[in-house]
Amino acid sequence: MNFSKMENVTNLQSISYNQEKKFLQILDQLELPHKTKYLDIKDTKDAWTAVKTMQVRGAPAIAIVGCLGVAIELSTAKLSSKEELHTFFAEKMEYITTARPTAVNIHGAAKFLKEYSAKLLEDTSCSLTSMKEKIISQIETMLETDVDDNKRIGKFGAEDIVSRLNGGNAKILTHCNTGELATAGYGTALGVIRHLRELGKLEKVYCTETRPYNQGARLTAYELLQEKIDGTLICDSMVSLLMKMKKIDAVVVGADRVAGNGDTANKIGTYQIAISAKYHNVPFYVAAPFSSIDLSLSNGDSIPIEFRPDDELAYINGIRIAAPGISCWNPSFDVTPAALITGGIITEKGVFKQNTDEYFVFE
Amino acid sequence: MNFSKMENVTNLQSISYNQEKKFLQILDQLELPHKTKYLDIKDTKDAWTAVKTMQVRGAPAIAIVGCLGVAIELSTAKLSSKEELHTFFAEKMEYITTARPTAVNIHGAAKFLKEYSAKLLEDTSCSLTSMKEKIISQIETMLETDVDDNKRIGKFGAEDIVSRLNGGNAKILTHCNTGELATAGYGTALGVIRHLRELGKLEKVYCTETRPYNQGARLTAYELLQEKIDGTLICDSMVSLLMKMKKIDAVVVGADRVAGNGDTANKIGTYQIAISAKYHNVPFYVAAPFSSIDLSLSNGDSIPIEFRPDDELAYINGIRIAAPGISCWNPSFDVTPAALITGGIITEKGVFKQNTDEYFVFE
Repeated sequence: MNFSKMENVTNLQSISYNQEKKFLQILDQLELPHKTKYLDIKDTKDAWTAVKTMQVRGAPAIAIVGCLGVAIELSTAKLSSKEELHTFFAEKMEYITTARPTAVNIHGAAKFLKEYSAKLLEDTSCSLTSMKEKIISQIETMLETDVDDNKRIGKFGAEDIVSRLNGGNAKILTHCNTGELATAGYGTALGVIRHLRELGKLEKVYCTETRPYNQGARLTAYELLQEKIDGTLICDSMVSLLMKMKKIDAVVVGADRVAGNGDTANKIGTYQIAISAKYHNVPFYVAAPFSSIDLSLSNGDSIPIEFRPDDELAYINGIRIAAPGISCWNPSFDVTPAALITGGIITEKGVFKQNTDEYFVFE
Repeated sequence: MNFSKMENVTNLQSISYNQEKKFLQILDQLELPHKTKYLDIKDTKDAWTAVKTMQVRGAPAIAIVGCLGVAIELSTAKLSSKEELHTFFAEKMEYITTARPTAVNIHGAAKFLKEYSAKLLEDTSCSLTSMKEKIISQIETMLETDVDDNKRIGKFGAEDIVSRLNGGNAKILTHCNTGELATAGYGTALGVIRHLRELGKLEKVYCTETRPYNQGARLTAYELLQEKIDGTLICDSMVSLLMKMKKIDAVVVGADRVAGNGDTANKIGTYQIAISAKYHNVPFYVAAPFSSIDLSLSNGDSIPIEFRPDDELAYINGIRIAAPGISCWNPSFDVTPAALITGGIITEKGVFKQNTDEYFVFE
């Protein structure tokens, strides 16, 4: 893996990583679409800050940038024993998961990597140097795996949507940003849209603004333009009228965490779109890597929902848009019950359908 | 009617009219809440421009400012016969209704006033001077009538909501702006909220931002602060989560036009809130003067929906928030079917309930 390869994988180069030099840069998503500015991520703290301030966002991208930040710090850390390495690594992984609570992928990755480190610690045939190399290498493969998984998600999702069309091409609504910028590349829900286009079955994409952070207006609109996909921006409040006018064949969104029964936490507003889709008989899909599924939770009630500061709602680009003095309520996510996910949950393993009361019970 | 009286009627002084001097000023709502800037309205053209550019908005306020603009122009017009007066007046009234298509109040007022002018034209006992005075006087009474009607709306609505409470005080959600700024004073939906507070039965108000023009964030939030009402601002996309968390006892919104069966055109996003309210069993009310009811329409399908320019969605305060080049879809209103108006339609004549298939058939 090197710069030139990464340039091919992600057109927008949202995550640039040089394996040899252990050099990570991310595109600052707070500055998009106006400025293309890269930030150096040199250690765990840099990664934590970038995630916390939403310079990088999207559940898969958060996991990758968080873990790479730890890997870079690990690569130069002076550690005199395997025990010391394990403790150091476990502490850094625990810290990085505290940046944002809702997206599960980084929590899953941290759990997996800590267990992997513990196994290497016990393996007497593994040297200190080898242990460090193996952990770093394991993290570095996440970048490639994520892109491959997204391409499978795109294919499974697009084929499922096409199977529902009564002739013609698909008009798709999506919410928030789930593309190159939210993942290592290709995208989840946006990957489905990309694959529909590859199949010649995409007519049109509508993307919501996604208040209060405008990921749709800033990031998805930007990605659609870059990909020359016919896209139109709407306000979050316009979804129902659009559906009533029969302009939508399917909704596809991403996920920050899916419970074992299929209840799905995603960007605030997703739940409202799902209610409207149900009312208008429009199939509603969630597209996410299997790592977004948290089988430890039987339903969505116990998914932690992050609340963000008032100012993120009251200001845009540093200018106050709300009357000075008004208080705000600013949940960053909501949970869509499985019953409203009428299309299915699209993963790299296939599309899970709600044809039983419980999702994923057969896994 | 004079300045000092008007100051008592509208605390925010959104419409300032001096009857003796025929001098009209309106508060420029595009500048709120940051600047309190008044605009002189000297004739029909000034009024048309203020309505078109949304310096004044809200169905009742549009009607009043539009008609007063014509009245002022009429007061100094050199007209040599009653026929000439009638033609002049009818043309001005027709022109003023072209500024915005959805709100019906100004259309109703224009129809009524043109008929009134025609009647005076035929009345041989009425002189040219008297005809002019009577028409102007008729328009001037609209200001006072609107405030009185709003107070009755407030009382009827608040009492209906209180009758549904199982003890405790009401937590109300409202959308867009329906207060002093949208009317001659007191407000429609906000008048209901005001009266709930007067009864000591108001716990809390949530107001939506109301994208893309942010009437909620800018104007309703501002009015709630002025009135010292406990208000919290949310994004349009957060309504469903708020209802799921049982934080809302009733939704009250305004109307731009109500069809004979109760289907209601109102600010874009209203329909989506009504769907969500239905899903969560939250009563949904429309509050509007009876002049908002267009009995010529049997249902909402034929209410004209205004589309506004892309830039009103893509820019805030002159700064582009959407990716450059993306196209937008920007309907200004949507129609909520009567079946979703589960609380009722509150007018100055009482609260109309959907206990038959048709609203208002008994009128």
